[in-house]
Amino acid sequence: MSAPLSLVADIGGTNTRVALAEGPELLPGSVCRYRNADHAGLAPLLAAYLAAQGAPALSGGCFALAGPVRDGVGRLTNLDWTLDEAELRRALALPHVTLLNDLQAQGHALDHLAPDACVPVIDAPVQPGAPRLVVGVGTGFNAAPVYATGAGLHVPACEAGHVNLPVDDAEGQEMARFVAGADGFAAVEDVLSGRGLEAVHAWVTRGDAAPRRSAAEIIAEAADSPEARAALTLFAHMLGRVTGNLGLTFLPFGGLYLTGGVARAVTPHLEPCGFTRAFRAKGRFSRLLHDIAVFTVEDDFAALTGCAGYLSAQG
Amino acid sequence: MSAPLSLVADIGGTNTRVALAEGPELLPGSVCRYRNADHAGLAPLLAAYLAAQGAPALSGGCFALAGPVRDGVGRLTNLDWTLDEAELRRALALPHVTLLNDLQAQGHALDHLAPDACVPVIDAPVQPGAPRLVVGVGTGFNAAPVYATGAGLHVPACEAGHVNLPVDDAEGQEMARFVAGADGFAAVEDVLSGRGLEAVHAWVTRGDAAPRRSAAEIIAEAADSPEARAALTLFAHMLGRVTGNLGLTFLPFGGLYLTGGVARAVTPHLEPCGFTRAFRAKGRFSRLLHDIAVFTVEDDFAALTGCAGYLSAQG
Repeated sequence: MSAPLSLVADIGGTNTRVALAEGPELLPGSVCRYRNADHAGLAPLLAAYLAAQGAPALSGGCFALAGPVRDGVGRLTNLDWTLDEAELRRALALPHVTLLNDLQAQGHALDHLAPDACVPVIDAPVQPGAPRLVVGVGTGFNAAPVYATGAGLHVPACEAGHVNLPVDDAEGQEMARFVAGADGFAAVEDVLSGRGLEAVHAWVTRGDAAPRRSAAEIIAEAADSPEARAALTLFAHMLGRVTGNLGLTFLPFGGLYLTGGVARAVTPHLEPCGFTRAFRAKGRFSRLLHDIAVFTVEDDFAALTGCAGYLSAQG
Repeated sequence: MSAPLSLVADIGGTNTRVALAEGPELLPGSVCRYRNADHAGLAPLLAAYLAAQGAPALSGGCFALAGPVRDGVGRLTNLDWTLDEAELRRALALPHVTLLNDLQAQGHALDHLAPDACVPVIDAPVQPGAPRLVVGVGTGFNAAPVYATGAGLHVPACEAGHVNLPVDDAEGQEMARFVAGADGFAAVEDVLSGRGLEAVHAWVTRGDAAPRRSAAEIIAEAADSPEARAALTLFAHMLGRVTGNLGLTFLPFGGLYLTGGVARAVTPHLEPCGFTRAFRAKGRFSRLLHDIAVFTVEDDFAALTGCAGYLSAQG
């Protein structure tokens, strides 16, 4: 008799990916992607998936979402869905349901990734058992520390994308004012995200008649366009400065892991655009940052794997 | 037969306090203070203390220091002492020795403080079992999150005082340049510390012929001196902004606890100087900060109590 299956999902602002898992591993061929706009909510979406899979017996569910989770209720930052653990458990007739924010799920994935999934960005010794830190750059920005404790992995939630954008000169102040939201507050996420890279590019090209570029276009044009290159350089500097601040805050001597679509896409540009220097530029405490290795996680299904890993660790 | 005693110490840049503890409680009357300059190192200082106490039988030691600890070795940020767990264990013939940074010790103290030791600064609900955060402002600045896990309290180390000073306007940039170290890097600690308050006051009064004021003088003069009041207002705004950033980073819905001599001394000035507004000024994520209570810890021996609490929890 095989181990009971679990249901895992990764709910973004636009799409939701769903899979079945056996222990910490995704069942091959079980990953499906759905457009959120085609469904009235997560429960009907998951019910449709389970019906298509032949209504397998399930031991539980774990779902990751891009937004804060409190007291078993999650709110998506960019979609009008409220998710409730108790309601989902009843609607899907599951023994238990856990909601994680997507960065917590990425943290729970680290021990279950393929050996070649972590691409080195900054080389440094990795200290086994030391804290690790996952930093996500995609639709938004966030982080989650990963602590090994006597009771297994502990991966607390953060909202690290909403702290003050750290700028340190007059040009930076101008950029901060340009990218700030309607309330005038410039947060880390206003630069370090897909829309953030687009805003930085719009700032670099302000006054030009050229149409606004998407993040994907800016990254694709880096070799040929001085403006795209300038935007990527500002982005890489800010990513270095912010991850350096998070490095001092969490001391992840077990490694700092960049995840998310934007992080993966900009990775080849980080070193040539000055990321490493910006990461370590912290005055007399720079030496601590020389001992923190940085990787990019190339596995696009890591949040699903993390949900499976979380459930598997709960026994 | 009474429980075995343990040896606890709190090593600052100038003084070291030492006590005996029985379980998580300090033995009444056992606290002594020593000037570091009068001793060749921590081991001879502690040996002198133990001799004066009549060489009691000890079950172990836990010592807190103002500086980073790695691989059982601690370095004081402002004193030329290197502390090594193994060496201290041998020199003092103790079964085991643990070094913590002083903020970790403050975190381990939270569950053992007297009920009136935590004075409310910002009222909000305190969620039992949720993460807590200790923020220390004294000779330096640092923080430590306090997580309740299935394996007891988990209190990881940080170096949160060395991240970029978050400034958001031209006046802030000027101040940052003024308080920055010789390397030009302006860290949080360059404002949020005793010497930081003095530097902010020197910036406010730049051009004046008045002699430089100590932090204690600036705080004492707040009612009468517009310059002292201006310096405290800048300090309170920065403390609000930085603790707000740490609030979003650690989500301490179990409370944020200010500790350290400078935090205690400025507490009466925080609310009138705009601390609460600065704490919550994070654009659309301000609402999360409305759910974080802030306290000041009035217990000056909390680091010693935390060392005792740590040892007691290890069983």
